[in-house]
Amino acid sequence: MTAFADSSVSPTVTTGPITGSRKVYTETPGGLRIPQRRVELTNGEHLDIYDTSGPYTDPETKIDVHSGLPGLRAPWIAAREPVNGAVSQLAYAKAGIVTREMEYVAAREGVDVDLVRHEVAIGRAVIPANRCHPETEPMIIGKRFLVKINGNLGNSAVTSSVAEEVEKMVWATRWGADTIMDLSTGRRIHETREWILRNSPVPVGTVPIYQALEKVDGDPAKLSWEVYRDTVVEQCEQGVDYMTVHAGVLLRYVPLTARRVTGIVSRGGSIMAAWCLAHHRESFLYTHFEELCEILRTYDVTFSLGDGLRPGSIADANDEAQFAELRTLGELTHIARAHDVQVMIEGPGHVPMHKIAENVRLEEELCGEAPFYTLGPLATDIAPAYDHITSAIGAAQIAWHGTAMLCYVTPKEHLGLPNRDDVKAGVIAYKIAAHSADLAKGHPKAQQRDDALSRARFEFRWEDQFNLSLDPDTARSFHDETLPAAPAKTA
Amino acid sequence: MTAFADSSVSPTVTTGPITGSRKVYTETPGGLRIPQRRVELTNGEHLDIYDTSGPYTDPETKIDVHSGLPGLRAPWIAAREPVNGAVSQLAYAKAGIVTREMEYVAAREGVDVDLVRHEVAIGRAVIPANRCHPETEPMIIGKRFLVKINGNLGNSAVTSSVAEEVEKMVWATRWGADTIMDLSTGRRIHETREWILRNSPVPVGTVPIYQALEKVDGDPAKLSWEVYRDTVVEQCEQGVDYMTVHAGVLLRYVPLTARRVTGIVSRGGSIMAAWCLAHHRESFLYTHFEELCEILRTYDVTFSLGDGLRPGSIADANDEAQFAELRTLGELTHIARAHDVQVMIEGPGHVPMHKIAENVRLEEELCGEAPFYTLGPLATDIAPAYDHITSAIGAAQIAWHGTAMLCYVTPKEHLGLPNRDDVKAGVIAYKIAAHSADLAKGHPKAQQRDDALSRARFEFRWEDQFNLSLDPDTARSFHDETLPAAPAKTA
Repeated sequence: MTAFADSSVSPTVTTGPITGSRKVYTETPGGLRIPQRRVELTNGEHLDIYDTSGPYTDPETKIDVHSGLPGLRAPWIAAREPVNGAVSQLAYAKAGIVTREMEYVAAREGVDVDLVRHEVAIGRAVIPANRCHPETEPMIIGKRFLVKINGNLGNSAVTSSVAEEVEKMVWATRWGADTIMDLSTGRRIHETREWILRNSPVPVGTVPIYQALEKVDGDPAKLSWEVYRDTVVEQCEQGVDYMTVHAGVLLRYVPLTARRVTGIVSRGGSIMAAWCLAHHRESFLYTHFEELCEILRTYDVTFSLGDGLRPGSIADANDEAQFAELRTLGELTHIARAHDVQVMIEGPGHVPMHKIAENVRLEEELCGEAPFYTLGPLATDIAPAYDHITSAIGAAQIAWHGTAMLCYVTPKEHLGLPNRDDVKAGVIAYKIAAHSADLAKGHPKAQQRDDALSRARFEFRWEDQFNLSLDPDTARSFHDETLPAAPAKTA
Repeated sequence: MTAFADSSVSPTVTTGPITGSRKVYTETPGGLRIPQRRVELTNGEHLDIYDTSGPYTDPETKIDVHSGLPGLRAPWIAAREPVNGAVSQLAYAKAGIVTREMEYVAAREGVDVDLVRHEVAIGRAVIPANRCHPETEPMIIGKRFLVKINGNLGNSAVTSSVAEEVEKMVWATRWGADTIMDLSTGRRIHETREWILRNSPVPVGTVPIYQALEKVDGDPAKLSWEVYRDTVVEQCEQGVDYMTVHAGVLLRYVPLTARRVTGIVSRGGSIMAAWCLAHHRESFLYTHFEELCEILRTYDVTFSLGDGLRPGSIADANDEAQFAELRTLGELTHIARAHDVQVMIEGPGHVPMHKIAENVRLEEELCGEAPFYTLGPLATDIAPAYDHITSAIGAAQIAWHGTAMLCYVTPKEHLGLPNRDDVKAGVIAYKIAAHSADLAKGHPKAQQRDDALSRARFEFRWEDQFNLSLDPDTARSFHDETLPAAPAKTA
């Protein structure tokens, strides 16, 4: 019996269409079915919206969390041969080969497939899609495409259960999460991940060092390349699509954090710094980086090179420690690409507005324009309980400047683990940030949605206004609180 | 019996210190007592924070809403002579005279009083303080000072009562509103305003055309200079500190809005446009502007020149109609200043991020750097129910670029009237935006607060982290949801 088949775990997930929308599929000339969220308007028009929610919002699909989602990509993967010994989207793109995944994302984004192939080939975009995660609906992360958002999930020793995390995953994608990360710690870490992977319609990321640390009883000094490597292989086999690897935390960078207001706040960063200091040598992530590339290449797992020395406060933004590590991440990016492994770069964190643009400029310069994947950043630290807002302010700006994917922050950031409501609040705040950036970047599809909603508003088509919004249920209920009469909505 | 003395109205207002803070007063060499919110930290340090909450958070003060607040400024006003026939802060500043109000705001902002006098003299800052509103604690609005926020209140024919609005005013200033606007319509408009003015520790703004319209039974075409003038005098006598005047809506600008997605969305703007079209001539606000200046000058009421043609959607941002009106507002600014009347300029509204900076640049160029006072702007229109967030994203950026005061937007924007919770959500979101801008502008006091909170966070001084935050109650409750044990807070 696999962990996944354990019948004592029985997640209840949210299914059915988002209010006022229905799932449609548009067929590509190549026969792919691209899901969309269609909003039918009262004036006879309709708008199709990019849809991350997977089969859960399709009433025609029978959901069985014990069977998992169908393996959409399985036949595509089975049908293709390696190119230059590699099976990654990057290898195919470099060789001029258009994969089904590329075709799928091109249709999803409404762009030419040549643009997709080109951006993947030069490393300015990634399609995180482990061959062992055939359930994922392909998506692309890159500055030439719609800005994406990630939602973090994960239980801990203290709270939450496997079933809750599966529902949070479905819930996050329902509201617009383009990828999710499983940051579980504590017991049942493998099992939780299996449940999430088999049921996730979006790419799943992890931070393997968290599980490796569990295997050595939480003592960073006891970590080794062997333990780490085995953990990575285990997660690759399960189907993890991208992995955060803090390989840029070098021994000589650690002292640069000594005079910071908030030292090292990245969990992975502090684990690796502790290891480096304990052994007084460079980390196994750095010294074994090429071996790691070989493993990820086999599965087409994407690197998310972690910013272990990211600032943890406004005071520490853009300092020497942060940018020293970024330079090393740039070197590692080029090594990974030489191995045909796709790469994203993680970014901060906590950055005042006037220092945001420099982060993007340096990342692009040092890391060969690899997609930037930032956590917020928070534009101020004085509002715990509202960090979805402090960080949406920074996220919108950094995405406008070129960040390709935004890692959400929930209202519980710095205070506790997010519940279902927090996950939704985080996703909605980040859809706002991402969409604002798409508008500022001149994305025609983004503008269409704003225009459709604005026209509905101006013409008092209340139902259309609600249904076109990011959260029809809340918009409708707020309206009904003060103006409950139905005539007010059609007047 | 004045309306205010009506004992059938009996507001219950929130009093007592904000959790973890206490009210202190620092005395200036000139003998002024400047209120501050002091946060005592567990490490023996303390931080004093700019405090807008008035006597309500001072347990030593007895609050009686039927008597109103003490007339702090009454003796100052009584003691001074006109200069060049004028009694406005602008007239005094131009003449090189430092008023008590200037002294007060200099201490409050922690800057030299010469800077205050200079900025007021050149019109780059205003101190909205009607001589008939002696209860207000002086504050300054200008780009060289802390970014301010305004909270809109106001009942309507449909909902809300006088007592509720008085409590909302106290509640908004408790969380940080620097000014409030009373946008009441419907019955009891004079009475509501009287209650608010007599109890408000912050400047109060209005849009007099709303009340004038009530006097002509809601028909814009029936409005006249005489009705409007009498309304303005009535409100000046009551103590309104600044007034929105849509004098820039010229007849020839109205057709410029015809091809917009959302036409004219400003209520004042559409009233004046309707009047201009009905009479086919320039509005009485424009043709009688100098007479209006003479009235406002007598009381030292500040103009807030309204943007009646502001965009109501992303699609309409920065269009010809908007900027044509802005040019006219610039001309009017110079006329008002020649009459020694202080001026702010209102700005949008709905603007995508890449078009925000141009708004500030043009406003400063056309309006002689008069303080810019913007509503958001919303960076996207697709998130009704979350417009405090969509607009905080725009507000933070426009304030960084130079906007001096931000008019808040609550989650109920476009959907209904805000309740008490919505007012708080709006104020907190806007304190975040304003503070983020202060940080980006390099304000040393802003940075101090972030640093104090970040240090508390890094050292696990949970209580200090909560108490230094914008909303200690919510931060504490979120923490306690997942980690309720007291040891976890001091660990």
